[in-house]
Amino acid sequence: MERLIQCLSQLPGVGRRSAERMAFYLVKAPPQEAVDLAGAINEMKRSTRHCGVCFNLTDQDPCLICADPRRDQSVVMVVEQPRDVLSIESTGMYKGVYHVLMGRLAPLEGIGPGDLNMQSLVRRVHESHEGSPDKSPIREVVLGTNPTLEGDGTAMYLAEQLRGPGVQVTRLARGLPAGTQLEWLSKSVLADAFAGRQAMEA
Amino acid sequence: MERLIQCLSQLPGVGRRSAERMAFYLVKAPPQEAVDLAGAINEMKRSTRHCGVCFNLTDQDPCLICADPRRDQSVVMVVEQPRDVLSIESTGMYKGVYHVLMGRLAPLEGIGPGDLNMQSLVRRVHESHEGSPDKSPIREVVLGTNPTLEGDGTAMYLAEQLRGPGVQVTRLARGLPAGTQLEWLSKSVLADAFAGRQAMEA
Repeated sequence: MERLIQCLSQLPGVGRRSAERMAFYLVKAPPQEAVDLAGAINEMKRSTRHCGVCFNLTDQDPCLICADPRRDQSVVMVVEQPRDVLSIESTGMYKGVYHVLMGRLAPLEGIGPGDLNMQSLVRRVHESHEGSPDKSPIREVVLGTNPTLEGDGTAMYLAEQLRGPGVQVTRLARGLPAGTQLEWLSKSVLADAFAGRQAMEA
Repeated sequence: MERLIQCLSQLPGVGRRSAERMAFYLVKAPPQEAVDLAGAINEMKRSTRHCGVCFNLTDQDPCLICADPRRDQSVVMVVEQPRDVLSIESTGMYKGVYHVLMGRLAPLEGIGPGDLNMQSLVRRVHESHEGSPDKSPIREVVLGTNPTLEGDGTAMYLAEQLRGPGVQVTRLARGLPAGTQLEWLSKSVLADAFAGRQAMEA
């Protein structure tokens, strides 16, 4: 019992008290429910791997997004983490594919380019231009790293690496988050919004 | 005493209990402190008015920003409220002048163009182009209404009204707020950021 509580309290957002509640719930639950949970955890660990193309988490390789013929293989969005893929997918707006770095450059933590899926991205872009007839060349890489100091640094580094003919490197817009009020926003958000102001097409 | 508590509890963020605490504090405070507070309130109400040019709150007319020769009179940022001027000023990035609408179009609340300082903005832009030699023509109007449904509607309406030769109408960028993580952001923010993505100048 104590071992289970210890394990559960490792989960994010679960403290000692919640872990205890979960453990006692499982004690009282029908045996099948506990077995199902344990089985689901084992199955997930057994079957989940990284997609060989985009490095997203998947239970098949290539992942469902990379393998989907309706996705536009000529646009690749670069994100830090698999959960960022979920965020962008939730908008329903993006029809391209992804490349998951599994982190960001963080010199202070000793995380350099070699620790991330960067070389594979550069190779992926180059190879798409070497004209194997079944692949469309990548014409746009959208940098979707977080709008933080480290995310920005990562984007700058990648833009430098990816520069070359036939591929445009863009990045997600910075500015006012939809639905907020100017008075609630920080200086840096307002400064970004002013610096990035755009012509109104009336 | 009860009347003072009633008055204090009208202030934003002040409930009955806080109003009572403030009132009892003033009972115990030295007489001069209470008199100073009352005087400051009266003086503020007596001296504060709207700037005749930009409608910002001011104690002199034209206001300190409109009267400042170092400000660029050819760029006007349109905001909803005087406190938005404070927000933008806090960035230290904006060197133009302002026009305060004192609200936004809100058809459901019956707030139309006639209820806001819109006619005066259109006139201000037109007159600046009629070449009085001491005024520089307004060459850019930056729409800085809130990134909300009503703020957007107000911006669209103004862009239509202001369209004309010699003046460019821009608006503050929409996108990722600096310093956040993709996983925390709403769909609409992510959709804006993707729609507004910009080329990296590496």
